Amino acid sequence: MQKPLILVTNDDGINAAGLNALAEFVSEIGDVVVVAPDQPRSGQSHAITIEIPLKYQRLNRDSKYPLYTCNGTPVDAVKIAKNKILDRKPDLLVSGINHGSNSSVNIIYSGTVAAVLEGAMAGIPSVGFSLLDYSPFANFDFTKKYVQKIVNNVLDQGLPKDTALNVNFPYTNGQPLKGLKICRQAKAFWEEEFESRQDPHQREYFWLKGKFNNMDNGKDTDEWALANGYVSMVPIHYDFTAHHAIDKFKSWENYD
Amino acid sequence: MQKPLILVTNDDGINAAGLNALAEFVSEIGDVVVVAPDQPRSGQSHAITIEIPLKYQRLNRDSKYPLYTCNGTPVDAVKIAKNKILDRKPDLLVSGINHGSNSSVNIIYSGTVAAVLEGAMAGIPSVGFSLLDYSPFANFDFTKKYVQKIVNNVLDQGLPKDTALNVNFPYTNGQPLKGLKICRQAKAFWEEEFESRQDPHQREYFWLKGKFNNMDNGKDTDEWALANGYVSMVPIHYDFTAHHAIDKFKSWENYD
Repeated sequence: MQKPLILVTNDDGINAAGLNALAEFVSEIGDVVVVAPDQPRSGQSHAITIEIPLKYQRLNRDSKYPLYTCNGTPVDAVKIAKNKILDRKPDLLVSGINHGSNSSVNIIYSGTVAAVLEGAMAGIPSVGFSLLDYSPFANFDFTKKYVQKIVNNVLDQGLPKDTALNVNFPYTNGQPLKGLKICRQAKAFWEEEFESRQDPHQREYFWLKGKFNNMDNGKDTDEWALANGYVSMVPIHYDFTAHHAIDKFKSWENYD
Repeated sequence: MQKPLILVTNDDGINAAGLNALAEFVSEIGDVVVVAPDQPRSGQSHAITIEIPLKYQRLNRDSKYPLYTCNGTPVDAVKIAKNKILDRKPDLLVSGINHGSNSSVNIIYSGTVAAVLEGAMAGIPSVGFSLLDYSPFANFDFTKKYVQKIVNNVLDQGLPKDTALNVNFPYTNGQPLKGLKICRQAKAFWEEEFESRQDPHQREYFWLKGKFNNMDNGKDTDEWALANGYVSMVPIHYDFTAHHAIDKFKSWENYD
């Protein structure tokens, strides 16, 4: 029987430890092809590259599975994989494991999650994984059991149409994970901060930083689950419509 | 009485005709400050700039209102405007007028709409405007009445919490607009196409293109409204949770 074809991508780039860990974990389940940005592309959201041309290449590197890079964003990588690299539609797309949180509103900035939504738009069951540890030397081993269980569940049962999964792992400092919680995205936002510096020509420039503000005390949120030692899993979609608000604006149709 | 402070941005960049038109239209209503990317940033979605430092400057250009540029994305522009340029929180953020559609799924790729969602996250009533005409010489005059009416409505009534507006104008080729329709985002997707070329060193490269696929026949969608000569207005938010799917996954919580 043919093994499932699994496309692996991320936004931290081809050399990230989290990408390697994810590819290893899912290579025990299916045939893996890695297609990832050639450099870190964190915070790229659903950006696509239209001002410069795209290139991709297969790396000449010893590996159990083919490794490709492209000079674009995570969403570009998914599009190139589908259209140029893979000879059939993958049975699964996994993205990550991201070095750092993609819980709550981080999702809107995340290239890791954007790749997942791009997969879902193309009808590919897609799951994003992130670990709340920004270190390039983060240990991902303790996530393996959950990654494989979730991947097996998705391959066995499929996902509802237009729906993908956003999974985050807490940083447990060696403590065991408490379990999996199905959550909603917490209401939170980043308040930007700009760190000011001067270049050698006395011109001011800024590094964008931010302060995370969680406005949400709900125990059904991903933030709650992560703060309490659980793996959070949020089913996500790409309908931006605020359906509950449509009726409120109906009177605006009466113009003139 | 103090006039409302209106922040104007876009993703086509500081020199776009649509930005100029929008700033002109709303300058009849409030005090305008323009803060826009210094170059075209279409398709940048909610990307933020974290790999290179950010700069901004006020342009030395004759204008009724201050014009600022930054070297970042539309979302960066909003963050810099809020944090560095404006002396108080704006009463309104408007983005556009985009040269080209931001209806249905285009919203997820759009920098114009991302700026609007970033505004909403910061508690600023925010509206994005787009015209289904990609020409740099597009005529925006016929949109003025609607832009001003919608802006006045928002300033008078406010917007529901966490909700912003995504307004698209059809290309009418001189025919009058039929009216305003409050809509949901149509279910559609882009199927990527890659145009292959060779550089002078015989290396293959690609331009990303795409084919728009509308899978949605609903008459309550933005695509329907636009195809039938109406202005479409979709209330939008930034909750990616597929709430209807949460219960379906609850059994996955029973691991081991």
